[in-house]
Amino acid sequence: MNCEIICVGTELLLGDILNTNAQYLSRELAALGIGVHHQQVVGDNPQRMRECMLRALNESDMIILSGGLGPTADDLTKEICCEVMGERLVLDEDILDGIRSYFVSRGRQMADNNKKQAYVPENGIVFRNANGTAPGCGIEKDGKLAVMLPGPPRELIPMFENEVMPYLAKKTGGVILSKQVRTFGIGESNMAAAVADLLDGENPTVAPYAKDGEALLRVTARADSKEKALAMCDETIERIRERIGEYIYGIDASSLEEKAVELLLAHGKKLALAESCTGGYIAKRITDIPGSSAVFECGVVSYSNEVKINLLGVNPETIEKYTEVSTQTAAEMAEGVRRLSGADFALSVTGISGPGGASEGKPVGLAYIGFSHEGGTTVKELRTGKKENSRDYNRYVTASTALHILIDYLNKKDGE
Amino acid sequence: MNCEIICVGTELLLGDILNTNAQYLSRELAALGIGVHHQQVVGDNPQRMRECMLRALNESDMIILSGGLGPTADDLTKEICCEVMGERLVLDEDILDGIRSYFVSRGRQMADNNKKQAYVPENGIVFRNANGTAPGCGIEKDGKLAVMLPGPPRELIPMFENEVMPYLAKKTGGVILSKQVRTFGIGESNMAAAVADLLDGENPTVAPYAKDGEALLRVTARADSKEKALAMCDETIERIRERIGEYIYGIDASSLEEKAVELLLAHGKKLALAESCTGGYIAKRITDIPGSSAVFECGVVSYSNEVKINLLGVNPETIEKYTEVSTQTAAEMAEGVRRLSGADFALSVTGISGPGGASEGKPVGLAYIGFSHEGGTTVKELRTGKKENSRDYNRYVTASTALHILIDYLNKKDGE
Repeated sequence: MNCEIICVGTELLLGDILNTNAQYLSRELAALGIGVHHQQVVGDNPQRMRECMLRALNESDMIILSGGLGPTADDLTKEICCEVMGERLVLDEDILDGIRSYFVSRGRQMADNNKKQAYVPENGIVFRNANGTAPGCGIEKDGKLAVMLPGPPRELIPMFENEVMPYLAKKTGGVILSKQVRTFGIGESNMAAAVADLLDGENPTVAPYAKDGEALLRVTARADSKEKALAMCDETIERIRERIGEYIYGIDASSLEEKAVELLLAHGKKLALAESCTGGYIAKRITDIPGSSAVFECGVVSYSNEVKINLLGVNPETIEKYTEVSTQTAAEMAEGVRRLSGADFALSVTGISGPGGASEGKPVGLAYIGFSHEGGTTVKELRTGKKENSRDYNRYVTASTALHILIDYLNKKDGE
Repeated sequence: MNCEIICVGTELLLGDILNTNAQYLSRELAALGIGVHHQQVVGDNPQRMRECMLRALNESDMIILSGGLGPTADDLTKEICCEVMGERLVLDEDILDGIRSYFVSRGRQMADNNKKQAYVPENGIVFRNANGTAPGCGIEKDGKLAVMLPGPPRELIPMFENEVMPYLAKKTGGVILSKQVRTFGIGESNMAAAVADLLDGENPTVAPYAKDGEALLRVTARADSKEKALAMCDETIERIRERIGEYIYGIDASSLEEKAVELLLAHGKKLALAESCTGGYIAKRITDIPGSSAVFECGVVSYSNEVKINLLGVNPETIEKYTEVSTQTAAEMAEGVRRLSGADFALSVTGISGPGGASEGKPVGLAYIGFSHEGGTTVKELRTGKKENSRDYNRYVTASTALHILIDYLNKKDGE
């Protein structure tokens, strides 16, 4: 089964918004085993939309349209798609009631033009919109399939996941399930090499991704039942674990910071931070997670040596002898902030993010990460290997490495 | 003049990467007065690429291709575009030397297949690539124009700005220049309403954008000379300033944090931060800016009341009487971290980012921002108005508001 994606909207052609829908839909369709061979963006122009759709339906089994389902006169996706597929639009009273309730629940009155959104293809199927007024819909005819979805990602994504995916899964046979294996400390190419044979599998499929300096594998299985698909995923994940288990920090975890907060909560422990080169980036990422206040005690951004000495209690002689970017300073920073805050764990970072600040033997990208806990203090030397113009990368990866040190420690505790 | 954008790459069709090039090019072309009426993404498939290009050249004056200029066998954009336009590819020795030097300067040897990248259209023009090995190129024939650019944004963007834009500007008549007017504290719709008549102008054009909770205006002028275009921009900016001057914090500034660091450097002053609900976000944004170490003294992320009391010296009675989310606590936090660090200025934040933590009269999105300086301490109450699921938005906008308080103070000092 192959597919074209057509995104409708003049704002995309003007470059006012980024077309995240095309990426999202392409990735999800690939996981369903549906190949996307063409993406198009077209404005709210009836003649161009018509041509686009006709051409796409001629060349593909299926088209997915996003956008142009709004209440105004220039929202024409449904009208033109029905015309092209030879379908009539009919008023659906249930949907109209739903739209009215949507407005009532927000203390507003439904405008007259919203009624347009309650028209659906006579012989089509309807996808409910839990986050807006425009329902999605699908038309099957003469072996071709057209799916229409609303443009805003916060409406499109839940609709696709909850309504369209099960519908398409049935068409492509059975239930489809995905799990993400998240790794840290192994590059994408090394990870892919270690599981190369699994990447050729057809069911489950295993696909590698790199995202923000992390590498992850997506395992997708298709089966008659949810249980079977799940079992197939788990079996493949077990085989992945045999190869690269030491790098896996979580299955379906959404990020290092979420995993860190989750583990701290589970262990009933608190964290403190002393950041120099990352400048609050670790604190920011930890506090991105709702509920982190229960496990995050205190962070100190000690950009100057005075703060390292006066606030964290780093010995001035340590800095003089070893400089501020050293194993010794990192250790004293971690111990200092742990003492200061009374937290169970403390992470510290001191390094050179660039572009300036490098010296003999201390290149940009070098960082020392201290970790202080009840059993003592360890320091990891990190060299990101990135030099000029990589300030953000260096800071992000350094913060990720620090979070991973904590996760690894707590994961190993769990295993004891 | 109208244009189609064709992005080439199977990774785009798989959804592995986000198509930021299409947005970038669309926006830049709009500023040049070139209308984009169609965007397409096609894989590395010769037959499909050929069809796409033929169709696009038939319907448009100009096509811009991105991607597929790499050294491997499946990089075919140049070959197929030349075939379609009836051009021959010839080896350019200068470019070949340039590619060799590129590898030498990185301590590597040029692979044989990189030679492919030194072939350019016989009668075309070449766009130099300052950040990679693939040159861009353009072919003009029979009133049609095809421009080929490399896929990676860090190669495409500088090439477009430095080489393609001047080339296209000549075609569309003269020099084109843009300036960005950055505002804070006025919404996009209010801003647009205040300058509504200017938005209808044809030269200069004025376009409003909303970006990360800020609103900005882009002023673009076309003229015979750079000086004239600049003068036209400045004149329009003067008119904008008359309407919304109080909200403008910078012209062509890249962000609030960059502007804050720039002003602190210019004034020779240092900053300290005490963050509760923003959890290090302000520190992170300040230290995103290279060179910020000269102006940023110290940040404390005081997530718990113990840290507010023991480290920042907030009076326990203040918290008891007014709670930790109050004008009084914010003021004492700012004064505390200023005293602790010896910095000239201190910003503090305490608030409720959500989703939890709200109480009677203290909704999610409420924050108090303290600002302590030589003349005293002020506190601003902020209500972002966003409730559930807006944690990141609330934190970002609160951090932006804090940065803007500092910028506004220093800008006004400059005006005195």
